[in-house]
Amino acid sequence: MTKIITIGREFSSGGRELGRRLAEELGWAYYDREVLTEMAKDTEFSREYLETFNDNGPGHLYPITFGHTLISGSQSSFDKSIDVFSLQSKAIRALALKSNCIIIGRCADYVLRDLNPTRLFVYADMPSKVKRCIERNEDKAAEITEKKMIKEIKRIDKKRKKHYEFFTSRTWGDPHNYDFMINTSGKDIKALAKMLAVNFKD
Amino acid sequence: MTKIITIGREFSSGGRELGRRLAEELGWAYYDREVLTEMAKDTEFSREYLETFNDNGPGHLYPITFGHTLISGSQSSFDKSIDVFSLQSKAIRALALKSNCIIIGRCADYVLRDLNPTRLFVYADMPSKVKRCIERNEDKAAEITEKKMIKEIKRIDKKRKKHYEFFTSRTWGDPHNYDFMINTSGKDIKALAKMLAVNFKD
Repeated sequence: MTKIITIGREFSSGGRELGRRLAEELGWAYYDREVLTEMAKDTEFSREYLETFNDNGPGHLYPITFGHTLISGSQSSFDKSIDVFSLQSKAIRALALKSNCIIIGRCADYVLRDLNPTRLFVYADMPSKVKRCIERNEDKAAEITEKKMIKEIKRIDKKRKKHYEFFTSRTWGDPHNYDFMINTSGKDIKALAKMLAVNFKD
Repeated sequence: MTKIITIGREFSSGGRELGRRLAEELGWAYYDREVLTEMAKDTEFSREYLETFNDNGPGHLYPITFGHTLISGSQSSFDKSIDVFSLQSKAIRALALKSNCIIIGRCADYVLRDLNPTRLFVYADMPSKVKRCIERNEDKAAEITEKKMIKEIKRIDKKRKKHYEFFTSRTWGDPHNYDFMINTSGKDIKALAKMLAVNFKD
């Protein structure tokens, strides 16, 4: 059986970097947008569409089970969202069964719940997230006020929350949905990855 | 500088056992009620009183700063609560400065905030907490219904929350107040302690 770590994360908390570095430390596979590429190969959905879907979530927020009864006729954007999620979930499962891996986002903690992944959630306080955001976008940082940056961070997390809760019926970021919650505020992600890696080494 | 781990925990989540085992693994000092004993040595407060205080929290819930202006004359139970907390905090600080240690509860994460402790919060889902509660109290477990046990677990956590929030003005169990949140649901505490210990070894 493969070992799987899933990482949910607040925007700009360093969750993605932590996952990538953790994968490097462990020599495990690492997936985030790669999952989409993998999917797009075998489906009619273009990479562009999948990325849009993952960034923006489903257009409508009806419970999944009502999807097909509410919307009939030609395939609606709602139906497409459901199909994409289903295809993406299959791709994630195939990858997770192939080798030890770390998967960022994509509701992977829920999708792979029967495979008993270690579920991490990475978060940070707002000043740390703003700092990270500025460092990542040095070229654009001068153009945007801190107030706008905070608004944008909140907007993206709101979308992530909506997306996660629509597909999983669970609360995004609720400690009870994760094994370990990791606060990256003021921490060096590289050192944190090294520290955490020892927990998963054989 | 000493290394300090503070552990906040939900009742029956295994936080105390995790702390004790972690201390054993690391060879660090371990404090919970010992802190009280240490305090009681040098004060007029008996061990019994201190234990009552820690179990039940302050009698009144006015903001700390109003305590002395609202209540005058002979020392009220409110004033005593404040004094006990202050003495306990001094004792915790003295112990934390003495050697690497793990401190359970006692708002130690807040009391020692300037010493940069690693702040853990241990939690679990209700079925796991009930199971642990039954295992710990095998002799009495037959006498109490599961419904009553859940009520009691909730009651104790409500008190812990009230106590913590009164003295720290922070929200008990809020991920932003801790470095790592650890979900013990369905986990073996001994194995978990071994796993976590590697993070803190020199």
